[in-house]
Amino acid sequence: MDEFALIRRFFDRPVKDDSVRLGIGDDGAVIVPDPGRELISVVDTIVAGVHYPLDLPPFDVGYRAVAINLSDVAAMGGRPRWMTLALSIPQADTGWLSLFAEGLFTAAAEAKVSLVGGDTTRSETTVVSVQMLGDIDPHDVIKRSGAGPGDSIFVTGTPGDAAAGLSLLKSGSDQTGESEYLIGRFVRPRVRLAFASSITRLASAAIDLSDGLYADLQKLLMASKAGAKLELAQLPFSAEILAKFDYDAVINFALAGGDDYELCFTVPRSKDAEIHAVAKQNQVQVTRIGRVVSGDGIECTKDGVPFEYADTGYRHF
Amino acid sequence: MDEFALIRRFFDRPVKDDSVRLGIGDDGAVIVPDPGRELISVVDTIVAGVHYPLDLPPFDVGYRAVAINLSDVAAMGGRPRWMTLALSIPQADTGWLSLFAEGLFTAAAEAKVSLVGGDTTRSETTVVSVQMLGDIDPHDVIKRSGAGPGDSIFVTGTPGDAAAGLSLLKSGSDQTGESEYLIGRFVRPRVRLAFASSITRLASAAIDLSDGLYADLQKLLMASKAGAKLELAQLPFSAEILAKFDYDAVINFALAGGDDYELCFTVPRSKDAEIHAVAKQNQVQVTRIGRVVSGDGIECTKDGVPFEYADTGYRHF
Repeated sequence: MDEFALIRRFFDRPVKDDSVRLGIGDDGAVIVPDPGRELISVVDTIVAGVHYPLDLPPFDVGYRAVAINLSDVAAMGGRPRWMTLALSIPQADTGWLSLFAEGLFTAAAEAKVSLVGGDTTRSETTVVSVQMLGDIDPHDVIKRSGAGPGDSIFVTGTPGDAAAGLSLLKSGSDQTGESEYLIGRFVRPRVRLAFASSITRLASAAIDLSDGLYADLQKLLMASKAGAKLELAQLPFSAEILAKFDYDAVINFALAGGDDYELCFTVPRSKDAEIHAVAKQNQVQVTRIGRVVSGDGIECTKDGVPFEYADTGYRHF
Repeated sequence: MDEFALIRRFFDRPVKDDSVRLGIGDDGAVIVPDPGRELISVVDTIVAGVHYPLDLPPFDVGYRAVAINLSDVAAMGGRPRWMTLALSIPQADTGWLSLFAEGLFTAAAEAKVSLVGGDTTRSETTVVSVQMLGDIDPHDVIKRSGAGPGDSIFVTGTPGDAAAGLSLLKSGSDQTGESEYLIGRFVRPRVRLAFASSITRLASAAIDLSDGLYADLQKLLMASKAGAKLELAQLPFSAEILAKFDYDAVINFALAGGDDYELCFTVPRSKDAEIHAVAKQNQVQVTRIGRVVSGDGIECTKDGVPFEYADTGYRHF
């Protein structure tokens, strides 16, 4: 099959989006931005055998590749709009491609994102790179760099679940009960788009959790030129993770595990109550886990007692 | 080295571009589109050992990865503005990365494109995917689909040179004289940005040559629901390719070779003279090689005699 036929068969679906003046099938797509809004550009790649197990169902590969990009747009407070796909695969396996495309389009449809172009190439390793464009009111952009001393640090959801799920997947655990829930958190991250866009005027900084809470918070703090005090006893854990793992493992999944695609964000202390109200409205669990301080680094306590934590967060190389 | 340090060291250069409100270092970039202009989105990937020889100098890998995307933007008549990079590499080889980045930024600077973000991952195979955004006056977009019967078919430059250069590279030919020129056409495609943006109101359709003149013209014709008559004796060849290869090989490099990143475009017959004038102004060689006809397919003649050509253009799978 040539690339042209492959794209037509699996990826060239009718786009119901007036902003897409020209979609798949030309040298490039032509899109019409909304006047007055700025663009958010993100790109995130997953590699078979590195970021996900080789035997992950192709639907989930497609779904995740989109979700992790949605999560980056969410972390800026933006609205995802358009995406392109650079897909490198060892061969044109029509069964795999068909399920992969289904997962990709499912995640895109949930977030009302249009696939406007792409490139399919042959490579020994499967590499899935999605590039996404969002848009945003210029006053709504949440950066990593806005956190200040005294700000509260919040996290959405129950971090650690995705990494715990991945470890269960890799160990060949049965996929029922708590395991099913945890594995689901890895393969289908629920991206906090609506909530994130509701806190753009409250949050001072935000980042999404892809490399582990510790490493990602560290990035936010470096951008903000600040430090943090974290109280580990405040970390919100799911009943499922606590049922399957001992407490040390749970702490490690949350701090170093990554793949959660939850949000970690900071707000001025005076806005804590508003955050809780917005979270309730959006039915999103949010938990205050510490505060920003001047200086640098992250100081952890557990029930008030200093806790030495050696970060083992995801290292790309 | 973690991804963060790698990006900072090799890719996070100061951006002198007011339209980039937030560049590398956050969850995403924030860019400010010009009012009234539409966006052109393209993505093109090169895989080591598939699209270029494994021992291609890293500078050239970086340069080419950008150039082939510039070429797609040019083929639409657009102005390239911003790009992101999804780079998958087996290890963080600082020597390789440093030269690769040099090539990437050189090509970007030549076209005044800003790198606004990216993603670096580990993969056994080196996969370089560049996503580029351009912008354009809505009335200037050149599609593949606008060619009509009677239109002239033009090509820029001397197609076949890049494929001939690649074959010389692969055969380990000495890299002097004509070989140096031909190899140069493969590793440093000269993208026809200025010329393309000068013919947006003259051309009825355009495509850039990446998979070979025959296959790419075929794509333009399918989009335009038309056929073509090509006179092979009109094909413009470089002195260098004619000095190194026999005529059959030259024809094949041009029709099936790919990698030229020249433009193939159509114009109403009445505009031929204007095209030649604009080409002269831009110091670009353009040659009329045939005409669009109703129907489908490409009918070749050589000095007026029917010529059977079996397309062997690049197949991705």
